[in-house]
Amino acid sequence: MTTVTSLETSDVRFPTSTSLDGSDAMNPDPDYSAAYVQIHTDADDGLEGHGFVFTIGRGNEVQVAAIHALREHVVGKNVEELLDNMGATWRSMVGDSQLRWLGPEKGVMHMAIGAVINALWDLKAKRAGLPLWQLLSRMTPEELVELVDFRYLTDALTPEDALRILRAAEPGRAEREQQLLASGYPAYTTTPGWLGYSDEKLVRLANEAVADGFGMIKLKVGGSLEDDIRRMRLAREAVGPNVRIGTDANQRWGVAEAIEWMSHLAEFDVAWIEEPTSPDDILAHAAIARGVSPIPVATGEHMQNRIMFKQFLQADALQVLQIDATRVAGVNENIAILLLAAQFGVPVCPHAGGVGLCEAVQHLSMFDFVALSGTTEGRVIEYVDHLHEHFVTPTDVHSGAYWPPLAPGGGTEMLSSSRAEFAFVPND
Amino acid sequence: MTTVTSLETSDVRFPTSTSLDGSDAMNPDPDYSAAYVQIHTDADDGLEGHGFVFTIGRGNEVQVAAIHALREHVVGKNVEELLDNMGATWRSMVGDSQLRWLGPEKGVMHMAIGAVINALWDLKAKRAGLPLWQLLSRMTPEELVELVDFRYLTDALTPEDALRILRAAEPGRAEREQQLLASGYPAYTTTPGWLGYSDEKLVRLANEAVADGFGMIKLKVGGSLEDDIRRMRLAREAVGPNVRIGTDANQRWGVAEAIEWMSHLAEFDVAWIEEPTSPDDILAHAAIARGVSPIPVATGEHMQNRIMFKQFLQADALQVLQIDATRVAGVNENIAILLLAAQFGVPVCPHAGGVGLCEAVQHLSMFDFVALSGTTEGRVIEYVDHLHEHFVTPTDVHSGAYWPPLAPGGGTEMLSSSRAEFAFVPND
Repeated sequence: MTTVTSLETSDVRFPTSTSLDGSDAMNPDPDYSAAYVQIHTDADDGLEGHGFVFTIGRGNEVQVAAIHALREHVVGKNVEELLDNMGATWRSMVGDSQLRWLGPEKGVMHMAIGAVINALWDLKAKRAGLPLWQLLSRMTPEELVELVDFRYLTDALTPEDALRILRAAEPGRAEREQQLLASGYPAYTTTPGWLGYSDEKLVRLANEAVADGFGMIKLKVGGSLEDDIRRMRLAREAVGPNVRIGTDANQRWGVAEAIEWMSHLAEFDVAWIEEPTSPDDILAHAAIARGVSPIPVATGEHMQNRIMFKQFLQADALQVLQIDATRVAGVNENIAILLLAAQFGVPVCPHAGGVGLCEAVQHLSMFDFVALSGTTEGRVIEYVDHLHEHFVTPTDVHSGAYWPPLAPGGGTEMLSSSRAEFAFVPND
Repeated sequence: MTTVTSLETSDVRFPTSTSLDGSDAMNPDPDYSAAYVQIHTDADDGLEGHGFVFTIGRGNEVQVAAIHALREHVVGKNVEELLDNMGATWRSMVGDSQLRWLGPEKGVMHMAIGAVINALWDLKAKRAGLPLWQLLSRMTPEELVELVDFRYLTDALTPEDALRILRAAEPGRAEREQQLLASGYPAYTTTPGWLGYSDEKLVRLANEAVADGFGMIKLKVGGSLEDDIRRMRLAREAVGPNVRIGTDANQRWGVAEAIEWMSHLAEFDVAWIEEPTSPDDILAHAAIARGVSPIPVATGEHMQNRIMFKQFLQADALQVLQIDATRVAGVNENIAILLLAAQFGVPVCPHAGGVGLCEAVQHLSMFDFVALSGTTEGRVIEYVDHLHEHFVTPTDVHSGAYWPPLAPGGGTEMLSSSRAEFAFVPND
């Protein structure tokens, strides 16, 4: 019998605000940070589970405290029992009635559960000697359905629906795995598009993106309309007509403003408008989607849980669904969301960037391709060329694609040297 | 010039789980707790601002950490500038881009802002020598509108709408204040209805509620249908046909189950069904409201912010709106929600109980009556006879009504002896 011996947290912050990398209309000066967790066991294999919540600086210590509050759910528990029943493990944490009051199922406490769940998946994949995407792709449809909590979902997705989706994808798994290994998974890049960059830097980076094989780039918008029109024109001239350009407003607008603003950018052939308004506002997104059509609306990186994703899909309030590896309660909840997307026939284009988000989320898209939706049609994973050097298994992105990681684990392990170098020391 | 000298936090927990007070279908064993904040200044008056977030035990330390994370928004600042511009003060905290990432505007971080904002209002009211409800009722419509952040609201409520509502209520303020002082504000009691209580205790407490003058009681439901039918029958027999009986499912159900379950309770003349499903699920509440009509749907105690309240109103997903003093970002955001309710003509029946929620929320309903909606029609404030002895200004509830507090402040100050006695000491 193997036992979890400790849950160790750390507060890691990178001083990214000094370079304006990551600057957008709502987040002018982020310091990319991780509220980090390591799960230790008494097994002889020496394997650890690593996970984190991505934040942008101040308050990272609050996120660390929330992860620490979950220790009694894992420390002292039987490792095999936790890992063999990840559905039950998830439900025991999300269902902790006292902790649930702090959400419910949203914000700091829910993201903390995500970090611990992801760390357990990292450990499970390492013990299996498989990258997470492959571990998930080799589970049976029945095992996958057991991971999902269907409470509050059955008016849109039942366990029977989920089984049907997963069984339909089962025959093609081996073939698609080969295809993935041979061709990678399509990526797009946000590197050129930060608001804080000069026109010259924008054009240079857009040209580089095309040269690097990316079929899509993305620009931050919503600061000044005049600037946005100029930057979109420059970007379109730089990349030509065959590279897609997405836009991202980072929640700046109300309904009327979003529709009006986008009417001025439509001429540049916009791939999507991302986060036009509050991530909580289903009805506003639905109204905006009608108003900016045929430009698709994309959102999800700040969406708190599967219940919100369900409603956005029911209301046709998004046409591109963006999962995030650390916003919801980990791998289990993201599988629920991938199933919802498949049920509604909506493409999933993950949010990534930050620190470690690319490393983590690629596993979910690759699993989705191999064993769930069975397609990459209309799907791209966001990529930002930033901070990858701090990870044990950094992404391999080239020729406009993510190349499948083969190392065991969930991709969520940061180098211990980086954790030590960027450990945050509070003033008080 | 007066300066904020410190923001002091404390972790206060009452061991209520030992008595099953507060037990319901989702929260079997709450330990009522407060993540508490005191704001100190260098003024000669010796006045302090007190506020808190109500939680139910584990994780209260996370909530305390989140309040602590806000210290730089108040410590060292000019007191008059903070208190004279409470709209700007609110926006500076909610708009902190790095902290905002931890929500946005929801969960632990948002509730922490609520505690600090409420503590500032407590200080402002004490400095004015007025109870909070009276302080708010004497502000001009223009001053009140300035407190509200209309971002994400204008598709349902504009500043002009808000001004119109507040101006319409202005002429009757003095008269309604006299009426409030003479007759109190209607209350209802949840004391009889906790799931953990025996039938005998339920009947005894229901009889006592009627004898105490309450016109409405509420029962927790959703554990077992058979038990619910028996308990509703007992309660209806005890209180007779003229006392209203509300029901509260504490988020137990999905859409179909809620409609089915309530069809079995309808014969007992149900005043409302509260929290039938996830507080995040606007579309499900709308479907349930259609399915259980004419029983009204009530919700709000777990609703994360004004943006969700707006959508519930837009979708006719609630017919009774329940504000909570410590779930959203404090007095300012609750004023936004009261304005939304008035705009849609929906009655507000606050959630209370817990620890200190009755003391805090009564101020908002009384202000609403005097200066905003101008009516108590269809409105009752929840009351639970529990833990009031720990507050400097405990509620005065008798003859089925809340009687207006006259002491200066927001009602949010807990006795220092209680804070000391129930200070939580962690094991690690």
